[in-house]
Amino acid sequence: MHPNQRRLAGPAGTKPELRFDALRQEWVAFAGERNERTFLPSTDQCPLCPSGPGGSSEVPLSDFEVVAFENRFPALGPDWVNGHPVRPPTSGCEVLVYTSDHDLTFAALSVERVRLLVEVWADRYRVLGSRPEVAYVYVFENKGVEMGVTLHHPHGQIYAMPFVPPVAAAELRAGERHMRRTGRCLHCDDAGREAASPRMVFQGDGMVAFVPEAARWPYEVHLYPLRHVSALPDLANPERWALSRSLLRVAKTYDQHFGFSAPYVMAIHQAPTDGSWSRNAHLHVEFYPPHRRPDRLKYVAGVEIGAGTWVNDTYPETTAAELRAAGLDNSAPEELPSPW
Amino acid sequence: MHPNQRRLAGPAGTKPELRFDALRQEWVAFAGERNERTFLPSTDQCPLCPSGPGGSSEVPLSDFEVVAFENRFPALGPDWVNGHPVRPPTSGCEVLVYTSDHDLTFAALSVERVRLLVEVWADRYRVLGSRPEVAYVYVFENKGVEMGVTLHHPHGQIYAMPFVPPVAAAELRAGERHMRRTGRCLHCDDAGREAASPRMVFQGDGMVAFVPEAARWPYEVHLYPLRHVSALPDLANPERWALSRSLLRVAKTYDQHFGFSAPYVMAIHQAPTDGSWSRNAHLHVEFYPPHRRPDRLKYVAGVEIGAGTWVNDTYPETTAAELRAAGLDNSAPEELPSPW
Repeated sequence: MHPNQRRLAGPAGTKPELRFDALRQEWVAFAGERNERTFLPSTDQCPLCPSGPGGSSEVPLSDFEVVAFENRFPALGPDWVNGHPVRPPTSGCEVLVYTSDHDLTFAALSVERVRLLVEVWADRYRVLGSRPEVAYVYVFENKGVEMGVTLHHPHGQIYAMPFVPPVAAAELRAGERHMRRTGRCLHCDDAGREAASPRMVFQGDGMVAFVPEAARWPYEVHLYPLRHVSALPDLANPERWALSRSLLRVAKTYDQHFGFSAPYVMAIHQAPTDGSWSRNAHLHVEFYPPHRRPDRLKYVAGVEIGAGTWVNDTYPETTAAELRAAGLDNSAPEELPSPW
Repeated sequence: MHPNQRRLAGPAGTKPELRFDALRQEWVAFAGERNERTFLPSTDQCPLCPSGPGGSSEVPLSDFEVVAFENRFPALGPDWVNGHPVRPPTSGCEVLVYTSDHDLTFAALSVERVRLLVEVWADRYRVLGSRPEVAYVYVFENKGVEMGVTLHHPHGQIYAMPFVPPVAAAELRAGERHMRRTGRCLHCDDAGREAASPRMVFQGDGMVAFVPEAARWPYEVHLYPLRHVSALPDLANPERWALSRSLLRVAKTYDQHFGFSAPYVMAIHQAPTDGSWSRNAHLHVEFYPPHRRPDRLKYVAGVEIGAGTWVNDTYPETTAAELRAAGLDNSAPEELPSPW
């Protein structure tokens, strides 16, 4: 475990359950106690602020850099599948608090702090992924009330899942077919093609960010290391810095483009930890901001939910150009501190 | 075409495009002009109200019962796939206005009006489905600003899709496997099992409504005719009345339970019209209300979007009991008018 990261609170005795949907052939997670979870508390009641030794928040410390602990209201595990327990009595749902400063956002963190987050993500991937019942370690952040956030304090989440979730599975299956047909990684081919397309947002430092050709969200961005690495622990030290700078650059570009602290989902896709499909996995980070214009949201509604087909009211070539223009006002990666 | 249904406005010259997402192996629909579409206009500017002969709304009539016309801001078609046109110059995206009364909701319609909607849905399924380029006719309603509705006037939508969309395809594939293994319809088995479970909300009249065992939304309801019919045109006359009464009952139960006119997505799943998988299709209607409590929404966020796994903060057995209790205050189906 990374020295800056400590494990504190345990789960609050919930009993989540996984059920298999025979119609869509997917697992759905049930966790009844979450419905009463803490909802947008006032700043002085924030459970993620340091409350000092013996304090009542989730972090009874005077201060911290980054802290990870089990979610008090876990969506997953210790799971019961069809009435049978399938996990040891730890949830595998972790909260990762980015800073002790309640009012910051990811975009406002120092590159050193983001570098530390990358380290913690890699560590939790290894530790949680080594459990026999864990098939996939999913690292993500929901930012903003538009994305359903219930605590404003900057934080992300880690779910250790006992199955490879559908989106990851779809990508891995597609990668397997592409590998069999061409002998190459689907993501390597895709990222290389997008880097040379009008959908490229920025590249350099061995990284490329682009609005994908078939983006579901107007300002969706995918961020890839161009080198084929399957998961965060495979990144070399300079690549970890490059990833940190690039993550910050995406978040800052959104804020610059929209003119406010923009909400988003940040989703990290890595190789499953159960050994399946590893050769096809290519580490990447997907960002989904919910805005289709600064004054309008895109809703996930009838077509997306009931049919599974996404409708995007913008063209990736247009939104990528807007993000490139906004990015010019950012610090370019080479201007950010390079501590190695 | 049904006599009460007239075709009026044509598409406004948009050029939607379908792109294939090689990573998730799904089509995504792009339609740039929709981003500037009419957004929550004042009642006197409503494009779905009758504006009289020569009027400026989409319906230049003095009055109407139900009216269907092509969406001025279609999400699909005439589609361009990777730069090549794949459809005739009609969109296959239709708006279906439920009533000339701006202030009604589906739940407030008469059973005769809902019966007429069933007739129009069946008619459009046949007419649109007979086009060679159409594989699936998807009928749905987004209700409420929480579901992204941009026009309050009560209306639904019909998308004639040139592919079988992912959710329908997943159900049909699961049905195919179940049929091969057991010789029976997956949906017949499932609906029969749910009808005898604590998740049943109501049954009778040859119909059953339940919160599915693996519901993604807290108050999700699936409504089935118990007889195996693959699409709306296969329903006999008494079954069309039974479906109309049951649809109203679901919508009224939501309003009664939540204490306000509840938002939802209503999605009708039927057989594809390209001839594929028909023996496994079983007509049903899925409702997804976004509330997890009367004062809180469920958000589709990081786990759902980035991993494809749904987290439900309630148990279907609990929410079904709540809906049954609310339903006791509704008119029972047998007390509604039975005009045959």
